Amino acid sequence: MNRIVRPQPPTCLIKKREIIDGYLDRYLPTEDVYPQVLHRAIRYSVMAGGKRLRPILALTAFEACGGGGEIIFKAAVALELIHTYSLIHDDLPCMDDDDLRRGKPTLHKEYGEAVALLAGDALHDLAFNLMAQTGNTEAILELADAIGTKGMLAGQMADMEAEGRSLTLDEVMFIHTHKTGKLIRSSVRIGAVLAGANEEKLTAVTRYAEKIGYAFQIIDDILDIEGDVETLGKPVGSDVKNFKATFPAVIGLEESRRRARELTDEAVEIISSAIKQPDHFVQIARFIECRQN
Amino acid sequence: MNRIVRPQPPTCLIKKREIIDGYLDRYLPTEDVYPQVLHRAIRYSVMAGGKRLRPILALTAFEACGGGGEIIFKAAVALELIHTYSLIHDDLPCMDDDDLRRGKPTLHKEYGEAVALLAGDALHDLAFNLMAQTGNTEAILELADAIGTKGMLAGQMADMEAEGRSLTLDEVMFIHTHKTGKLIRSSVRIGAVLAGANEEKLTAVTRYAEKIGYAFQIIDDILDIEGDVETLGKPVGSDVKNFKATFPAVIGLEESRRRARELTDEAVEIISSAIKQPDHFVQIARFIECRQN
Repeated sequence: MNRIVRPQPPTCLIKKREIIDGYLDRYLPTEDVYPQVLHRAIRYSVMAGGKRLRPILALTAFEACGGGGEIIFKAAVALELIHTYSLIHDDLPCMDDDDLRRGKPTLHKEYGEAVALLAGDALHDLAFNLMAQTGNTEAILELADAIGTKGMLAGQMADMEAEGRSLTLDEVMFIHTHKTGKLIRSSVRIGAVLAGANEEKLTAVTRYAEKIGYAFQIIDDILDIEGDVETLGKPVGSDVKNFKATFPAVIGLEESRRRARELTDEAVEIISSAIKQPDHFVQIARFIECRQN
Repeated sequence: MNRIVRPQPPTCLIKKREIIDGYLDRYLPTEDVYPQVLHRAIRYSVMAGGKRLRPILALTAFEACGGGGEIIFKAAVALELIHTYSLIHDDLPCMDDDDLRRGKPTLHKEYGEAVALLAGDALHDLAFNLMAQTGNTEAILELADAIGTKGMLAGQMADMEAEGRSLTLDEVMFIHTHKTGKLIRSSVRIGAVLAGANEEKLTAVTRYAEKIGYAFQIIDDILDIEGDVETLGKPVGSDVKNFKATFPAVIGLEESRRRARELTDEAVEIISSAIKQPDHFVQIARFIECRQN
């Protein structure tokens, strides 16, 4: 089988991830506060690791658009909490019924369904609490629009409705641009909005994020076929098992890889011509294309 | 069995409820927009009727504190959507596993668990979307604090953990003040905050809401014993069946009734000495004490 090269994340990503992990720990309720079980469950899921892609994107956009101060970390953490909430609910037995996530048993496997349900709800709520602490309602609207029934939830419904039947490329694209794309898109937009970016920069980071979000999902589909369970931290082959709509299933592996590369090149070009110091954006795009988990 | 008198809601409540129902219809996504199933499910639950107590309280506080304009209806609808989301998730098989709500099959009975899960998530999100449209982050924080793990979710966890064992009065109070009390309290506070109320008025409406929220839950417990399923729109006796913590179980029916009356009197006194035209507040308090559903 063709294996993709396995690079480590670039230093700028590792450093940003460490900073984000620090703020996650700081903003999450501690485990000694009532209801302890719920707070333990929340930390079990959130602190299980993860690429922290969405917060890193928000932070990168914020810095690139000249933002300063602590405010961005509230939003960055909020984005990771939304991502985690969506994974927890998506893993539940009535949804994808998955057993493994980020290399550990899924939350409902460890804490039961009721706690997993409420932990997802709690993260959803805490995310908006943190967003409100930014004092910026435009940024809150960006998030709410991205994850509602016009965004992420539309993707989840489409994904559910699509199971077991073959899809057109347009249908696969709809699912992916909504289920994962919208939150990735809103991550850079929220960073830019909080930095007070002008319309031109906001448009550039948005187009960049749409391209890398799309590439991200193509790679996700490829990894479900080619990845290994240990690196990935979740089962491989689950898309095929669940008759999920994927790019390789519709356009083949080689064409999927070519398209991911093309999208990455386009994203790099867009961001390089709009942002003075695009290095971190470029490294993120390149890393997404080569990622192994 | 001792039956409580059955008054109709006062005219001011009926009129406010009609106005709220109009805004609910206006702000909810229509059923012809994708994902239709999710939007139909949302309307199935939200438009099934209900007292609209929380939006009415927000509107009443807004008016009493001199607020004007349309902004309050975004928040009022948001409060009802949060209430509905909490009911949908609470009814799920992994939680209370209830079959009947507002006189109809619960959402998961009608649409399946996955749609019910996502519809709850969608309402949760839409509520914050509407709150963000008020442009007031202080009001958003009020809501987020009220329904998070320090508020409503703490009550839900405590309720779950309490099933099957006998509780002290303090424990029952904790569950009730958190599970329903916090959202009722935040409803008047959000109305007052959006009206730009001063600290004195904010304190008065808060104390009023704490009293009626408490009375509301005592009556809820009494109705689970004395109510009839047709008026109530949900099964009676489910608290006993589920070994739920209730006031009558801990302090008896008569003492529960006496306490509800006392709390109502206190609420009426507080609001009458702080607000110039307290009529609507008084009617709401009296109605809660005598309600049948």
